[in-house]
Amino acid sequence: MRVQNANPLEDVGIDAIEFYFPRNYVDQADLEQFGGVSSGKHTIGLGQQEMGFCADNEDIVSISRTVTRNLLKNYKISPDTIGFLAVGTETLIDKSKSVKTALMDLFGSNTDIEGVDIKNACYGGAQALLHAIDWVHVNYAAEKRSAIVVIADIAVYEAGPARCTGGAGAIAFLIRPNSAVPIDRVFASCHMKNTWDFYKPISSNVSEYPRVDGSLSLASYLEAARTSYTTFKTKAAKIADVEVTLNFFDAIFLHSPFTKMVQKGLAVMNYVDVNNNLKNSKNGLNENDRADMAKMVELSNNLWKRTTDPYLTFNRRIGNMYTPSLFAQLLAFLASDDCISENNEEKNILFFAYGSGLASAVFPGRVRQTESLSAMRKTSIQALQRLDERKKYSAEEFTEVLSMRERFLAKDVPTEPESLSPSLEISLFPETCYLEHMDSSYRRKYAIFEEVAQNGISNGNGNGH
Amino acid sequence: MRVQNANPLEDVGIDAIEFYFPRNYVDQADLEQFGGVSSGKHTIGLGQQEMGFCADNEDIVSISRTVTRNLLKNYKISPDTIGFLAVGTETLIDKSKSVKTALMDLFGSNTDIEGVDIKNACYGGAQALLHAIDWVHVNYAAEKRSAIVVIADIAVYEAGPARCTGGAGAIAFLIRPNSAVPIDRVFASCHMKNTWDFYKPISSNVSEYPRVDGSLSLASYLEAARTSYTTFKTKAAKIADVEVTLNFFDAIFLHSPFTKMVQKGLAVMNYVDVNNNLKNSKNGLNENDRADMAKMVELSNNLWKRTTDPYLTFNRRIGNMYTPSLFAQLLAFLASDDCISENNEEKNILFFAYGSGLASAVFPGRVRQTESLSAMRKTSIQALQRLDERKKYSAEEFTEVLSMRERFLAKDVPTEPESLSPSLEISLFPETCYLEHMDSSYRRKYAIFEEVAQNGISNGNGNGH
Repeated sequence: MRVQNANPLEDVGIDAIEFYFPRNYVDQADLEQFGGVSSGKHTIGLGQQEMGFCADNEDIVSISRTVTRNLLKNYKISPDTIGFLAVGTETLIDKSKSVKTALMDLFGSNTDIEGVDIKNACYGGAQALLHAIDWVHVNYAAEKRSAIVVIADIAVYEAGPARCTGGAGAIAFLIRPNSAVPIDRVFASCHMKNTWDFYKPISSNVSEYPRVDGSLSLASYLEAARTSYTTFKTKAAKIADVEVTLNFFDAIFLHSPFTKMVQKGLAVMNYVDVNNNLKNSKNGLNENDRADMAKMVELSNNLWKRTTDPYLTFNRRIGNMYTPSLFAQLLAFLASDDCISENNEEKNILFFAYGSGLASAVFPGRVRQTESLSAMRKTSIQALQRLDERKKYSAEEFTEVLSMRERFLAKDVPTEPESLSPSLEISLFPETCYLEHMDSSYRRKYAIFEEVAQNGISNGNGNGH
Repeated sequence: MRVQNANPLEDVGIDAIEFYFPRNYVDQADLEQFGGVSSGKHTIGLGQQEMGFCADNEDIVSISRTVTRNLLKNYKISPDTIGFLAVGTETLIDKSKSVKTALMDLFGSNTDIEGVDIKNACYGGAQALLHAIDWVHVNYAAEKRSAIVVIADIAVYEAGPARCTGGAGAIAFLIRPNSAVPIDRVFASCHMKNTWDFYKPISSNVSEYPRVDGSLSLASYLEAARTSYTTFKTKAAKIADVEVTLNFFDAIFLHSPFTKMVQKGLAVMNYVDVNNNLKNSKNGLNENDRADMAKMVELSNNLWKRTTDPYLTFNRRIGNMYTPSLFAQLLAFLASDDCISENNEEKNILFFAYGSGLASAVFPGRVRQTESLSAMRKTSIQALQRLDERKKYSAEEFTEVLSMRERFLAKDVPTEPESLSPSLEISLFPETCYLEHMDSSYRRKYAIFEEVAQNGISNGNGNGH
């Protein structure tokens, strides 16, 4: 029982985009003051301005449902046209049941949708995207059905120096042929290694917080950037006979734990190009040396300003969203006029995905001047505007909300999120799915917050589950 | 930056197989007596003979390492020829770091290996296989590299009626074109639904044990079998213009929580064929009615005896291995002479994958009379023989081992597995990776048990990590 593969598909990639981030945020300068650290430590040292956060009425299922529901609705996608859906996340609330299953309620009678959850720290989203692209290449011809990828996380850290590097967000992509943003995935070049730089052991200590070896994590990120980009250059030469450098790309996106890390990562990738031109000079710069890194950053300064720095707005103002952090940069690029070509030419883009543990990949894509690009640009511009519609909380209030999340996880069941109390006024954007109840068997029930009522979130209804 | 896809590949599928199961087992008749239930409840009622189990010195990483190491070694696979590796499992010990990263130590300088972990109950292994097949279709032409899929779980239940439905195992597949067992994956037909039949919430209660709604779980399995098989028939007609029935297949494999469930699942799938022939008679049988199910089982009796029952040996004697339970039946088929064709003809096989939560798929494959088939048959026959080389434990000893696993999870760190104490004599097969130590940061360290020493596992060394 077999079928011959049809003709190869062209330009398989991203053809619709949706982005959700929480309405709540805290100012990084406030966090500096609250934490008693030197002024500028977060804002200049890490390059972060603000940080988004979720109260205990949002979890990985609720934010994934919100973004998937909005993708279907805003792009008028019929559920019957979808044949694959995978979720890339490390925000686990269940060790067995996938987040994907909780999205099936949105697809009506179409239950023939392949794919489950993909996990490895911040890298899982990139892998879910690559799986979806492969799925479309192999399976699209038979039934002309598209794929959806959901990339979502809520990143929280225990009190201390790492807490300011949290964030939260969810991105959904529609994947199909002849797309506005094709991914040329055969060039994907990985660096995968058994590393304990960041992990979340399931142990006697029940916690959302990771265990982090800070210096190993930073060194691993740079090693991954260097190695996967070097492999990418070799692969491009081997497969396509192209000698590629970063100058080839109009925009370069790197996983962003904080934006200063992105600058260093780009500097290291750029130095691979430089060092190669210098015929692998023996007196090369060392990425783990402070002074050498400063030189590398200087060498990459023009590249940084042209290809990467302009597209870090979401990352600076929402923080580390884990899996979506890389792809939020694509939205910022699409929101800018830089993605438009007067001559109808394609723009070349490059992604560096990194997840501690560790898993990483460099892969290229293109932006084509299609009709769907306009729709994706509209979504991206609206998301940028929505940053200013958020509600600012003090560092004290933010800290109390994280304590609330800790209490929720430790509670006996049945229980409700504390933040549902109207007096607490933890806000949600309209059309946001939220956690309403956890029953005596830890089954979670969700609702949709339709509109902003006068007193907190009293206006939810039960349609969301 | 792009390449034109090369010519379609032929016969992408499984071309090497390795199977690991624990050396420890308990007799189901002993468990009946120990639990004070009626004689025959497990052995006749569930169709189970024995159950494998792991002590606290084995975890998902150790069994995945064991089976991957043996695959590379026994089939003389050069690590440089691998471009993809994914792990399908629900035995989570970390919410962020993938099991896949812990396998990278086995691949030397080749760190360019895409893929991470895939999760949804027992279905994750089937999805990892489908991802790997897609990966080979799309990416093989560029670099001629193959994929590996690791499918592994340790299934344990709290004391009570469900405990006898545990088990443990790990299977590794090599995936490449022109394989002995091609998977014709475009016919994959899913049934995906948001269901709380079985799940493992991360909550105040730290446990390896799932929460199970027994009757919902059984009904969900049958609904999934019926729906995904019905969709499969429709899809085969649509894509290949073939009116397919179960009679077309030489062997049919179904996910096995216990073998009586498989019999019922096959009966329901068969009844889809029967009912279709009867032109959807209004007086149809109901899968949730006890008497109707008995009739369905009777109707499928010949099919059961020919295509499914003969290949459930591993399932009867090891128990529910979660993700590998489906694929252990392929090994039993390969160990039998039924997979051999005198006329060099292909054998047709069918898979039904099920994972609670829920995710399920029906997909077809073939067995081709290739050289690699002989090697896979040898592995499968050796695995069958290894069932008799296991060590039998009493129901009391088995119960103490599960308490030991509970204690391990709740322990303060640093710590060592209790079962490493020689006096306890918890046995391992030679060449098995085991957990040696968990340090103060919950980092796990592994070793290889090279040979059976006289007193327990004193002969380990440090080469395994």
